[in-house]
Amino acid sequence: MARSLGRLFKGFQSPAFPKAMGAELCPATCVSVRTPFVRTILALPSAFSSKPQDFSLPNSSWGPEMLRLYNHYKSQCEVEVEGEEKQEGPWQRLPSYNRSLKFTPAADLCVLPSGGVYLSKTIQSKARLFTRNITDPGAAFEYVLFVNKEKQKCVGIFQTGHLLEGPPGHVHGGAIATMIDTVTGSHATVLSGPVMTANLNINYRSPIQLGHTVLIESSLDKMESRKTFISCKVTGTDGSKLYTEATALFLSISVSHLLGG
Amino acid sequence: MARSLGRLFKGFQSPAFPKAMGAELCPATCVSVRTPFVRTILALPSAFSSKPQDFSLPNSSWGPEMLRLYNHYKSQCEVEVEGEEKQEGPWQRLPSYNRSLKFTPAADLCVLPSGGVYLSKTIQSKARLFTRNITDPGAAFEYVLFVNKEKQKCVGIFQTGHLLEGPPGHVHGGAIATMIDTVTGSHATVLSGPVMTANLNINYRSPIQLGHTVLIESSLDKMESRKTFISCKVTGTDGSKLYTEATALFLSISVSHLLGG
Repeated sequence: MARSLGRLFKGFQSPAFPKAMGAELCPATCVSVRTPFVRTILALPSAFSSKPQDFSLPNSSWGPEMLRLYNHYKSQCEVEVEGEEKQEGPWQRLPSYNRSLKFTPAADLCVLPSGGVYLSKTIQSKARLFTRNITDPGAAFEYVLFVNKEKQKCVGIFQTGHLLEGPPGHVHGGAIATMIDTVTGSHATVLSGPVMTANLNINYRSPIQLGHTVLIESSLDKMESRKTFISCKVTGTDGSKLYTEATALFLSISVSHLLGG
Repeated sequence: MARSLGRLFKGFQSPAFPKAMGAELCPATCVSVRTPFVRTILALPSAFSSKPQDFSLPNSSWGPEMLRLYNHYKSQCEVEVEGEEKQEGPWQRLPSYNRSLKFTPAADLCVLPSGGVYLSKTIQSKARLFTRNITDPGAAFEYVLFVNKEKQKCVGIFQTGHLLEGPPGHVHGGAIATMIDTVTGSHATVLSGPVMTANLNINYRSPIQLGHTVLIESSLDKMESRKTFISCKVTGTDGSKLYTEATALFLSISVSHLLGG
């Protein structure tokens, strides 16, 4: 099974991810229900039958603050050196798709080591990433992530749409947790490879209005054996207003663990 | 302003909620951006122009396990006493709508105490509760909550749709946080009236497959002054398999606080 999965992900060489990561992530397609919570925020484009849409690029729903922050970090993804071609800058934009993986129609890809069928084909073909499950631009989560490997930092720029309501006119606490999970989980994956979320500890300080743009900045606290500790703050776009802060713990997982071996 | 809000919510007398709660919750419609994270999971049906749809009733997407658990708790909402009419049982079903509040067109309802306009009318009219923002039955969150005031317990029965994907084939960590926030927040509101979420601390133990039904049971840990401490477990439908466990802290808020007074 590992071999056929390897073929499925052959050619996954997005510049935003280490080449090895694609190969390591693939077994998550067959993760047993007995394994811990497996994080694979990063998408696997080669598994799509056609070129997938990258949703972390600007669209007509993006407001001025969203665009300003996007351009701020985008401009630092490439740097000009006099007399030479542009070179990679300190930041990298992470692409974002609406599926972690499009399951192949081959039935054997969905058979667990225990022999059970993994998921019904209906669910497989319809499944969409929670943060990208609404197609109307601007209605739910609009976001883009940038990572700075040298500084071991990650930022997420989020514009909160009208379908994220909790308290009237404000973003639902679960939607805020989802944004935090997305940024810290992607950050941990870039730093440590395949991980699972083990803990999220979120302190809500102030409500976020619908339609607002917020900045989520995550930092690596420490790495100990299989553990990656990340913390983050959700602030206004100038960083002065604190909305939420959180810590997150991720556990590295091995291929054999993912396969239930 | 308080008076006009009072009129808006006059007649809110759902048996699932204390009568006083409707009146207390209404000022959240004008919560200042400077106030803390305000929780108003419980819907306010009288604010709707027509009778709103209660989404916590069975529909064609509900699977056998979802229906079985629903019927288990529903049967305990009324008890038969020999020779008498049916009486209220120990459990109560909480209705669930796709808006916390439908904003009135009156512009003055949206003016903050500071004088600023609260939200654009476009966002107001389109806003939908995060957990009910997808209309296709069974595609995202299907759920119903029951509360037992005597035992100070609340249960949520959730069926996880294909649009909640995080790890391939499994529910997103943010979607799990959203389910936990929904159950514990509703529980705290029933116990303490208007509250805000102050903290969510979530330990992920095992991934939840898309299409699965899970049971979330929350218990009151303690109440101290303005603080309501709730803990919960997310398990399989027979309670034996532990998927996630969490603690939550909610802060009671006053009407004047909500109004930024």
